[in-house]
Amino acid sequence: MASLTTKTGQVIDRQLMESMLRRRMFYTPSFEIYGGVAGLFDYGPPGCTLQANIIETWRKHFVLEEDMLEVDCSVLTPHEVFKTSGHVDKFADWMCKDPKNGEILRADHFVEAILEARLKGDKEARGEKVEEKEEDPKKKKKKVKSEAVKLDDKVRQEYEEVLAQLDNYDGEQLGQLIKKFELKNPATGVEPSPPVPFNLMFQTAIGPSGQLAGYLRPETAQGQFLNFAKLLEFNMNNMPFASASIGKSYRNEISPRAGLLRVREFLMAEIEHYVDPEGGKKHPRFDEVQHIELTLLDKHTQLSGKTTVKKLTIGEAVATKVVDNETLGYFIARIHLFLEKLGADMSKVRFRQHMANEMAHYATDCWDAELETSYGWIECVGCADRSAFDLTVHKNKTGAPLVVRQKLDTPIVRQEWTVEINKKKFGPSFKKDGKTVEAAIEAATQELREAFAKELQEKGSFTIDVPGVADGKATVDKDLIKIEYTTITEHVREFTPNVIEPSFGIGRILYSILEHNFWTRGEGGDEARGVFSFPPAIAPTKVLIVPLSSNKDFTPIARKIGQKLRALGISSRVDDSSATIGKRYSRNDELGTPFGITIDFQTVKDGSITLRERDSTKQVRADEARVLEAVREIVTGAKTWEDVRGELPVFEAQEVEVRN
Amino acid sequence: MASLTTKTGQVIDRQLMESMLRRRMFYTPSFEIYGGVAGLFDYGPPGCTLQANIIETWRKHFVLEEDMLEVDCSVLTPHEVFKTSGHVDKFADWMCKDPKNGEILRADHFVEAILEARLKGDKEARGEKVEEKEEDPKKKKKKVKSEAVKLDDKVRQEYEEVLAQLDNYDGEQLGQLIKKFELKNPATGVEPSPPVPFNLMFQTAIGPSGQLAGYLRPETAQGQFLNFAKLLEFNMNNMPFASASIGKSYRNEISPRAGLLRVREFLMAEIEHYVDPEGGKKHPRFDEVQHIELTLLDKHTQLSGKTTVKKLTIGEAVATKVVDNETLGYFIARIHLFLEKLGADMSKVRFRQHMANEMAHYATDCWDAELETSYGWIECVGCADRSAFDLTVHKNKTGAPLVVRQKLDTPIVRQEWTVEINKKKFGPSFKKDGKTVEAAIEAATQELREAFAKELQEKGSFTIDVPGVADGKATVDKDLIKIEYTTITEHVREFTPNVIEPSFGIGRILYSILEHNFWTRGEGGDEARGVFSFPPAIAPTKVLIVPLSSNKDFTPIARKIGQKLRALGISSRVDDSSATIGKRYSRNDELGTPFGITIDFQTVKDGSITLRERDSTKQVRADEARVLEAVREIVTGAKTWEDVRGELPVFEAQEVEVRN
Repeated sequence: MASLTTKTGQVIDRQLMESMLRRRMFYTPSFEIYGGVAGLFDYGPPGCTLQANIIETWRKHFVLEEDMLEVDCSVLTPHEVFKTSGHVDKFADWMCKDPKNGEILRADHFVEAILEARLKGDKEARGEKVEEKEEDPKKKKKKVKSEAVKLDDKVRQEYEEVLAQLDNYDGEQLGQLIKKFELKNPATGVEPSPPVPFNLMFQTAIGPSGQLAGYLRPETAQGQFLNFAKLLEFNMNNMPFASASIGKSYRNEISPRAGLLRVREFLMAEIEHYVDPEGGKKHPRFDEVQHIELTLLDKHTQLSGKTTVKKLTIGEAVATKVVDNETLGYFIARIHLFLEKLGADMSKVRFRQHMANEMAHYATDCWDAELETSYGWIECVGCADRSAFDLTVHKNKTGAPLVVRQKLDTPIVRQEWTVEINKKKFGPSFKKDGKTVEAAIEAATQELREAFAKELQEKGSFTIDVPGVADGKATVDKDLIKIEYTTITEHVREFTPNVIEPSFGIGRILYSILEHNFWTRGEGGDEARGVFSFPPAIAPTKVLIVPLSSNKDFTPIARKIGQKLRALGISSRVDDSSATIGKRYSRNDELGTPFGITIDFQTVKDGSITLRERDSTKQVRADEARVLEAVREIVTGAKTWEDVRGELPVFEAQEVEVRN
Repeated sequence: MASLTTKTGQVIDRQLMESMLRRRMFYTPSFEIYGGVAGLFDYGPPGCTLQANIIETWRKHFVLEEDMLEVDCSVLTPHEVFKTSGHVDKFADWMCKDPKNGEILRADHFVEAILEARLKGDKEARGEKVEEKEEDPKKKKKKVKSEAVKLDDKVRQEYEEVLAQLDNYDGEQLGQLIKKFELKNPATGVEPSPPVPFNLMFQTAIGPSGQLAGYLRPETAQGQFLNFAKLLEFNMNNMPFASASIGKSYRNEISPRAGLLRVREFLMAEIEHYVDPEGGKKHPRFDEVQHIELTLLDKHTQLSGKTTVKKLTIGEAVATKVVDNETLGYFIARIHLFLEKLGADMSKVRFRQHMANEMAHYATDCWDAELETSYGWIECVGCADRSAFDLTVHKNKTGAPLVVRQKLDTPIVRQEWTVEINKKKFGPSFKKDGKTVEAAIEAATQELREAFAKELQEKGSFTIDVPGVADGKATVDKDLIKIEYTTITEHVREFTPNVIEPSFGIGRILYSILEHNFWTRGEGGDEARGVFSFPPAIAPTKVLIVPLSSNKDFTPIARKIGQKLRALGISSRVDDSSATIGKRYSRNDELGTPFGITIDFQTVKDGSITLRERDSTKQVRADEARVLEAVREIVTGAKTWEDVRGELPVFEAQEVEVRN
């Protein structure tokens, strides 16, 4: 693929960027002095603040803007909940073991790595140009060395076909591929064992008895679903509404890698928007976003083997059924706006629709916001219509009323055969089978009930098929039951809402935003000085305060400016080190600090200060109060730097290198 | 104990308050529809926002105010880290099992519950007045019924003495007490098994092999310590400095109880302040807090069996060595100010010093901020001087340089016997004992080294005692080593900083703040209407917008006011339900919403709105812009309600009950 470039058109030098991220402690491997643990990272001061600012932006953009009900639910979750949700049985990857060295391999990554290496070797042998494909963090455990061996044309084609649909194979099929192609672990030359499922949830025991199995949640959604009835009541029974949650989730990845992109502990932000399934899932604020143009990669395009994107407004996309419904479309557009606010390079953002085989069976439609990075296209936000699946399974399991009951303006009147059981006599009469027989009667169709009523009247009893009891039948006497044709007036409509779920991986977004905002000043090599051009709203520190020298008069001024900024809610930092002004600004370009305030001898005389903008390095000069107000206006989004530059006098001093 | 009263002097009706907390979904048992799990809670919308506001206040008060380095570290932690920190061996409670019904009992709670029941029965038998002691959430699994049986005077005294020092007994001693007093589980009449230690950390396995044991951290501190060297570098080697962290921690309590006060998953906020152990641990900003008067319960008072508090300024407390040093004192005072900011009733706040037996052996001094609630005095913040313990153990285990190296202005010149080992020959010569022999030589005193040097010169070798090698001795030849009297010039001083650790349990603080701010309007019983008088800064919603009726003209005005408040960063909610104005305000008193804005017909005419204050229910009326500015000023702390009441015209309408 073509090399990825920065916003300024430079080829992205990931190595330079990552060394800067390490050096400035944006993030760092956890427990590094103990040798580290794969897939676990700590955020250092700038990363931690960047993360907090992304979360704060998310909260304002989604939760506050739409009065969502934010909740904070337990991470520790008992077995039963994830058994019901399907995670205990299905939340797994396929894993193989090398019988010789015990190495554990993720089956799909293993197959892919070896076939790709063979294809690469084939190209080399044929003298074809080999493109260095960037590693995809979501796949491949490690690079496998290729040897220049020419393949049969047919084999080559088969390999290519397998790779194209690798996501579709289950464990057995992956095992067959390993056997068929004689895939061996390069480390030992041995074929790994057949793939077995490995559940990705971390397990633990809750309580002192050790008998209550629990998991660390792999997503925040279930806690929200379980509270649905209480949230609906809190919302005074108004529909539609959304709950939201920000919190950590855990996945015991078989082969974590690629920095923040595939980790075992991560911060998520999830929205569960509950909508009436009837009436086409309209959204009341859809008109506010319908004009927004999105980059879409739909499933039909992907099915035809292409990745050509379409540019459509979300209004057109919903009208032409590319996107299933308004509510889903509304959130896709809102996600687009959110990423824009964070400073994503929108030429590197696309919404990719899930293919049928990628989606859970119950999902109606699903789109991922993918951000392009040097690791490839990274899924950062999922936006799925999960239908009524989640609420239904929990309702069925627990009997809790995870439903909406709406008063009908016009009651519905209908007649039907109703069953009334004499509980006092029924139970003792059937003993242990009582519940089963009762359930069978409740489940009987209107036709059957009518027949039973007739039988009761004629014979004083009726017989019903009940699988699971002795003889498979039960006879019910008339003193145990009444079956009558009754008029029913329904004043209330009861339904299970559908769930639209926008789900954000904060760490992946954070990493992608880092890459999208990275560029260098100077001409590459050792001279290149890295810059993060974060939007002011998410920059970890907003203002660097720089006294020109260590002159004593400057110190109290610097401190006072810091206090004033703090009172405005704006984070700042004083750098009164002896480094040159240029060096001090450089250091803060690496942290993405958007503004610099210089205090010089003129400041002592007349109270004026200069304000420097990070990306342009242009400066203005005015009295302190005006400059601080300008900073406040830019940080809160009321004005842009361009506005301020037009309003305040330009300052054209060269960047003098003054040592104290 | 005397009944606890609200700020308004009413007896606290905890039942009323808790039913309100449940009804308004401040928090709720997690997984309730699955029967719940003890010690796990979800925060609903108001609780979640209250928690976020407490965290935000904490971040401003501590992190931003002092430029602390905030980090976000992994919760999942490998075994080795907690082995080194001592948690694997010592982070345990004593637990007994009932051999008959399998019930698990926390040994100290069990002993206490039974002895207290016997003492109560004794008082009843003697006809003495029995005070209903409130349950202490940190103790007692459940109440044990007392029987009116008189005890021997001596036995009674013994029981009382045991209860007074229950925290001092280890498992064996608790087991002896159970045997001696024939303590039986009331549920079965059987004596429980001898106490065994139960480690409170949740365990799990990291990675697919299942071989890397890990724990959920029980505190956030270790992650900060492990990053010390990187943080020091990030801080450009400046001392003192602090790191800080906000995040979840986990403790597998044997008997969680008392709502949010003893739970298994909880949010913590911790500061690790690193200070030079030399020079008396002064703090540069101590003069800013020294006048602050605190309520102190020191260890000497407690040793004498009393709970009489002292009122001292922190300046006096440090000067008289009641509090060990300035840095510890500085943080105690800052914690006091923080709790005040959150709206704690300061007459129910005390700082209690740990007794020698409560502290870890390495701790120098430790004070808990305790808040009085209907459950007793609750430890909400710990503030400990942990000496150099943590950094030292991790440094010793890993070899990582968790030290500060400071350039000396005047180099220190001294002469000493230095050892230089010939690594190439030394290892092969001693084989597996090499490291042990080398360590013994390195550890040798100056006197010994001098003797060795003499021996080397005279005999060409020397002999040294080395415990752990064969014969317990090793002979070292002169071609393996040089021992010389050398002049050493030290330009750098190296030391391990001491750690002052203020550690906040956010859930306990949140619960205590709820109780401290609760009161009722009306005269008790069914008429009592609950109010939470949160300070505006932490109230979940700041403004309730109330259109007088459902008149269509009011709707756009309400929406616009909401948007304007949002732009000012102030959360609001519109209640346009058909309930009476009084009822709508009442509902929001329960959520602690400090301000109400009413839109009426006058608003449509002249743009004026009324502003109502929650606690006084007083109102002012002015044009929209002035009212919104007043709200902003109060929420940011620039003004008080009293200021605003003096500035804006009072509005004296009765609370008319208008239905739409």
